[in-house]
Amino acid sequence: MPILDALQQEVGPAVSTADEDLEKVRTDRGGWTTPERALAVVRARGIDDVRAVLRLATATRTPVVPRGAGTGLAGGAIGTEGAIVLDLAGMDRVLGIDAADETAVVQPGVVTDDLARALEPHGLWWPPDPASRAISTVGGNIATNAGGLLCAKYGVTRQSVRALKVVLADGALVDLGRPTVKDVTGYDLAGLMIGSEGTLGVVVEATLGLRRIDRAPTVTLAATFDSVREAAAASAAITATGLRPAALELMDAASCAAIDALVAAGGGPEGDVPSLSGRGAFLLVHCDGASAEADATTAVRLLEAAGGDVTRAADPAAGEALLALRRSAHPAFARLGEPLIEDVAVPRSRLPEMFEAVEEIAARHGLPIPVIAHAGDGNLHPNVVIPPHLATGGIPDVAWAAAEDLFRAAMDLGGTLTGEHGVGILKRRWLEDALGEDVLALGRRVKAAFDPLGILNPGKAI
Amino acid sequence: MPILDALQQEVGPAVSTADEDLEKVRTDRGGWTTPERALAVVRARGIDDVRAVLRLATATRTPVVPRGAGTGLAGGAIGTEGAIVLDLAGMDRVLGIDAADETAVVQPGVVTDDLARALEPHGLWWPPDPASRAISTVGGNIATNAGGLLCAKYGVTRQSVRALKVVLADGALVDLGRPTVKDVTGYDLAGLMIGSEGTLGVVVEATLGLRRIDRAPTVTLAATFDSVREAAAASAAITATGLRPAALELMDAASCAAIDALVAAGGGPEGDVPSLSGRGAFLLVHCDGASAEADATTAVRLLEAAGGDVTRAADPAAGEALLALRRSAHPAFARLGEPLIEDVAVPRSRLPEMFEAVEEIAARHGLPIPVIAHAGDGNLHPNVVIPPHLATGGIPDVAWAAAEDLFRAAMDLGGTLTGEHGVGILKRRWLEDALGEDVLALGRRVKAAFDPLGILNPGKAI
Repeated sequence: MPILDALQQEVGPAVSTADEDLEKVRTDRGGWTTPERALAVVRARGIDDVRAVLRLATATRTPVVPRGAGTGLAGGAIGTEGAIVLDLAGMDRVLGIDAADETAVVQPGVVTDDLARALEPHGLWWPPDPASRAISTVGGNIATNAGGLLCAKYGVTRQSVRALKVVLADGALVDLGRPTVKDVTGYDLAGLMIGSEGTLGVVVEATLGLRRIDRAPTVTLAATFDSVREAAAASAAITATGLRPAALELMDAASCAAIDALVAAGGGPEGDVPSLSGRGAFLLVHCDGASAEADATTAVRLLEAAGGDVTRAADPAAGEALLALRRSAHPAFARLGEPLIEDVAVPRSRLPEMFEAVEEIAARHGLPIPVIAHAGDGNLHPNVVIPPHLATGGIPDVAWAAAEDLFRAAMDLGGTLTGEHGVGILKRRWLEDALGEDVLALGRRVKAAFDPLGILNPGKAI
Repeated sequence: MPILDALQQEVGPAVSTADEDLEKVRTDRGGWTTPERALAVVRARGIDDVRAVLRLATATRTPVVPRGAGTGLAGGAIGTEGAIVLDLAGMDRVLGIDAADETAVVQPGVVTDDLARALEPHGLWWPPDPASRAISTVGGNIATNAGGLLCAKYGVTRQSVRALKVVLADGALVDLGRPTVKDVTGYDLAGLMIGSEGTLGVVVEATLGLRRIDRAPTVTLAATFDSVREAAAASAAITATGLRPAALELMDAASCAAIDALVAAGGGPEGDVPSLSGRGAFLLVHCDGASAEADATTAVRLLEAAGGDVTRAADPAAGEALLALRRSAHPAFARLGEPLIEDVAVPRSRLPEMFEAVEEIAARHGLPIPVIAHAGDGNLHPNVVIPPHLATGGIPDVAWAAAEDLFRAAMDLGGTLTGEHGVGILKRRWLEDALGEDVLALGRRVKAAFDPLGILNPGKAI
């Protein structure tokens, strides 16, 4: 029986081969569109649909691409030639919240912000905080081991997942991990699934580890500097004292200029925010917890000692305005052209060198590359901006060349080519350089242990 | 060439076949001694020795058992028949400490407490806190994903390791993980190594993630209760308010009686400590960080409301005495007989049920089973005490029967058969029950991806 007929028979109304559905899955938020065409999109209604699709895919050796909201930046959920795109966005229920154990059981399609809204009345929150949280799904966060602003203090996704229900390539349903805080029975296969970008199995349910909401008032500070070097020194001075701000965000001169232009055009955030006109760097410090007030006082002293011009938010609304200034970076960059959002990470101490490298690479390739960095954890997002005259729908070679230089610079500093976005399709060509031949081969043997026929998201991640 | 001759040729003076060395590796701290006999012990002097041994082992299909200080409790490092025991205790150097990045690079043989002493002058500490920390090695902590008292607040070993240098079964040396806080390049193979009990590779160097020492004064509280149910309710009330004490330790009536007997015999801790005579439970609460004082005040109120008789340490020395009372549990149990230290974990909310189950199992088998529990994370250590008249050098059937009932009770409550000690040899017979056939098979395929000949610590963990 042809595959499509078999799919129809197995999962009936969940299958679509409509042009608009197949068109949509040719891309994600990364800016690249594949010329390939998937076979069908299956909007899974539950675990049984996922199992049926994988059994059929195994029987027919058809590739399966798991997909959530499609907000990835590396092409990991893009539908490839002849693949069944398994759309999990409709499996979007919060199945249970346990305040005593600080856990929640959710389906993979729950939108990250919707989860936050469901948890809030219970006084609980889930730490992963990707910029896409208003539109991304928990399953996507798990697939990429998503990070965000709060990782230096609260960890990445892997540290906030206890257990997973996973459908394997052959359709078997397994429980990996355990809802307990501690468990060393067998290998940590749940941890291995996290960040594996849909290449090892399909997550159909997750038990998440939560934290209590701390109601102590937060304090938000912002400082501008003459140079990014000064700002990086200030950031280093803050972490060196033992402070762990919830967020410590650094933007360079190019970012300041872009946001300043946005503000001048009337598109800036509401509220009283410092001018970024002509400034060399912007550093945001967000303190929470019982020591927020004392930490902020220490931070102000250190920021000023490093040459910073400090704004201390008088109240939560003013703090929100400072955070909004940081969040306006992406709209600001989008005014300059099409940003290719990169995602390197280096040991925190190497941040100043990495900022210098970005500046040099931007100059060499003649492209603006404004940078926003999670300074607390050493993760930088250089935005390689493709100016309108070079934008032809795809990503031009000069942007790839700049991106490659960024990866090499990060790796030379002991860093990595992706901190939190994933390898997907777009970074796969640098994977062997980053991992080395032996580790890549080992990873592929592990992949084969899960997926001997290679039907799960082939051509991605590994 | 016979293997021993080849070993001599490759690693010369590192090899021992002395009876006393082979005798020593027949056991660990778990109380069980194998009747089997290893081929040789190799005291590795560096990475080259490890690689040479593994190349030779691969060529001759000889089993290799990695071993640190031999302080494990599940037999994971016991030398099996004809195996080369690869003793890493001599690779005990701290290679570097980076305060700016809060990382340290160490060899696997560093004793956990020695690491703490090396880090202290830099204002840094490493969270894993196993009871064996004075004698266990960092490599052993990594092999078992060691926990301890501080996990509910500071995480288990896996959360405090960034990168590993690993020698694979064929002698290849690979770098897994990255010193950065964030990294999603390739699968999390470093995380997979942690807790794999020497069955996937040999860790020869580790980059550890550290924390800053918080100099704020700590506050230690202890409360005794009429019943363990009251104490468990008090513990639940504390965590339900959002407090995260650094340690929250619960002991049952049998533990109180054993410690009381130790104190009466003059073997108790120095300092002023509450009497445990006739008490139903003891709960220790250790608060640290900026909010320690406020947290302790809240905790006192909750402890008293739950029926607790509270002692608040007036100063650090008095706090140390209360902690020492908790730590005297093991010497106290040893006076009753030979303890088989079990290690189940359940979701925190199921602690009261698990305590009840232990009491019932102890009565049914006619053995004392005092329990100490890390109440903050749901990890219980029931000590199945083998009375002198049953102790014949090994572990009698009645103790195994009681242990099996403990595992089943924990699993029935959504828990696990080992929270932090590992599976080793001793718990392997229950592994399929705990994981299910599919997950066990998957784990074994992963094992084969790393170690296709099955020479790494065969018969252990998986």
